[in-house]
Amino acid sequence: MQKSAYSIAVVGATGLVGREIINTLEQRLFPIAELRLYASLQSAGETLTCGALTALVEPLDAARFGGVDIVFLAAGEQVSAAWLARATESGAVVIDLSQLFAADPDVPVIVPEVNAADIADYVARSAIASPDAPAIALAVALKPLHELVRVLRVVATTFEPVSSLGRVGIEELQRQTIELMSGQSTEEPAIFPRRIAFNVIPQAGEFLAGGQSSYEQQTMQVLRRVLDAPDLPISVTRVHVPLFFGSAIAVNVETEARLTAAQAREVLLVAPGVLLRDDTVAGEYPTPADVIEQDATSIGRIREDEALNVLDLWLAIDNLRKGSAVNAVQIAELLIRDYL
Amino acid sequence: MQKSAYSIAVVGATGLVGREIINTLEQRLFPIAELRLYASLQSAGETLTCGALTALVEPLDAARFGGVDIVFLAAGEQVSAAWLARATESGAVVIDLSQLFAADPDVPVIVPEVNAADIADYVARSAIASPDAPAIALAVALKPLHELVRVLRVVATTFEPVSSLGRVGIEELQRQTIELMSGQSTEEPAIFPRRIAFNVIPQAGEFLAGGQSSYEQQTMQVLRRVLDAPDLPISVTRVHVPLFFGSAIAVNVETEARLTAAQAREVLLVAPGVLLRDDTVAGEYPTPADVIEQDATSIGRIREDEALNVLDLWLAIDNLRKGSAVNAVQIAELLIRDYL
Repeated sequence: MQKSAYSIAVVGATGLVGREIINTLEQRLFPIAELRLYASLQSAGETLTCGALTALVEPLDAARFGGVDIVFLAAGEQVSAAWLARATESGAVVIDLSQLFAADPDVPVIVPEVNAADIADYVARSAIASPDAPAIALAVALKPLHELVRVLRVVATTFEPVSSLGRVGIEELQRQTIELMSGQSTEEPAIFPRRIAFNVIPQAGEFLAGGQSSYEQQTMQVLRRVLDAPDLPISVTRVHVPLFFGSAIAVNVETEARLTAAQAREVLLVAPGVLLRDDTVAGEYPTPADVIEQDATSIGRIREDEALNVLDLWLAIDNLRKGSAVNAVQIAELLIRDYL
Repeated sequence: MQKSAYSIAVVGATGLVGREIINTLEQRLFPIAELRLYASLQSAGETLTCGALTALVEPLDAARFGGVDIVFLAAGEQVSAAWLARATESGAVVIDLSQLFAADPDVPVIVPEVNAADIADYVARSAIASPDAPAIALAVALKPLHELVRVLRVVATTFEPVSSLGRVGIEELQRQTIELMSGQSTEEPAIFPRRIAFNVIPQAGEFLAGGQSSYEQQTMQVLRRVLDAPDLPISVTRVHVPLFFGSAIAVNVETEARLTAAQAREVLLVAPGVLLRDDTVAGEYPTPADVIEQDATSIGRIREDEALNVLDLWLAIDNLRKGSAVNAVQIAELLIRDYL
């Protein structure tokens, strides 16, 4: 840490993730000298507080990044594509929460508990990528196992909330739920490709030629990079379910040699960023509702599979906290500790 | 078919599955000479129709099965345990929809599209088991692939509706949804182990020593029996999600040799009981809401995995139709065609 406090900008400050970044900066007592907040023209004008600081949300079009140390880009891929260069040209380091750089070798993708050392590579483009919630939860859970016994194959199925598409996702689930509970037919969906209320939708992003979706591919790319396992075969099926907040993942992991459930529990109990909730006899396992406002990746239902050297696990993570904002702020903490 | 019409009894006639059995018998023009309907004392007294027939629902305690050809037991494991012998002692054949006999070698478990020939084994106990929805969907989808290239390993994660626990499951989701949407805190859950509204619960049945749940174990046992693959390693994670009707399964299948997505599509397109909805370019894939009132197992998102010889698929099935009532009535159709 070279300075006593830093100049921070948040782009997308009024969104669900942007607000959570501001909350997290405050909760974790991040040393802020100046806070600049940007949003679209429609969302600008609001005043937000972060600890003792108060800042007016300004229109992004008028943004200036001179003197800023760290810029959080939390307004989606298009904004990240348009603003990365402008944010870094005056010396700021960008922490990008879109998945635009999932496969860009010049932008390190960081889960601090897993691959903090890779952060040094930020110098190539003055940018670091913070992954999305499924990749973060999988990385935090699989890294300790992978260090013990090499992971050979991963099969994951996600249960993702509507808040991962922002406030409009929440509004669509609310509206459709009210319509259906009052016996009305639902309007055409606007945000999700099908009705989401009382339904599940196995689509996140656009479908690619091989049949995977773009977000599934990003999760696979990011997980391989963060685990430093470039050849690891990963199958991810990302599914939206009618949850507002919190998400879960069913994971099946094949390892090179046998890893017992007891061994996995032992290593996960002390793993950074992991909260073990794994006592099915006592009914202990994490659900999405249980992990809201928590910063750990919760793990339960650890069990040995019938197949040789295969374990099953169940993960739950708050998609807006550790799944987005907390991971990004942790990256900022590493940056100021070692580099800025 | 030895008779022109049969005497049929339905135990659990007023439940969700019982009513659907009566509907299905009518829709499929099952030849019924006499219909006897039984339910608990509290549910008895109602009059139900099945085509031209009308029957009063009588209390199960007063049931008599003399002269009955086929008895559908659709009132859960306890009722099946108590009534199987009494139903069969006067010559009836039982079709059991509980999963009490999932592992009983003397009770064949039948998915008509998959292992119709095994029905001959009903003579041991005058009983046939009809599996639950996940096992039926998996069997219908995997059998044609298994015949083409031997299946070596299956990983499945289910998305199951509250109606699989009967009307009380539906009422609990309704009540909790209304409470949450009106800003109230929810009462203690009564049917599910946690809150189900806007949440997901990775528990179906009770947990066993190895960490699997009882229903997960049943699905695995039944699927191996129906596919005639006694050593097939299967991992199933059964999850309740806030759906009323319809269910879905994400499936990952490892085969002995390569099976391309195109080959899988070709064989599934003409497979019995399968409806192929697999054109992600056009946004075609089945969701639970799409398959309600359908009798097929819908399949989409067929894609080759990164691992060698692995395919991913997405299944959806109406848990009350093909997932329960339709499969049981199909078994009855086989019985009268060949044996009664």
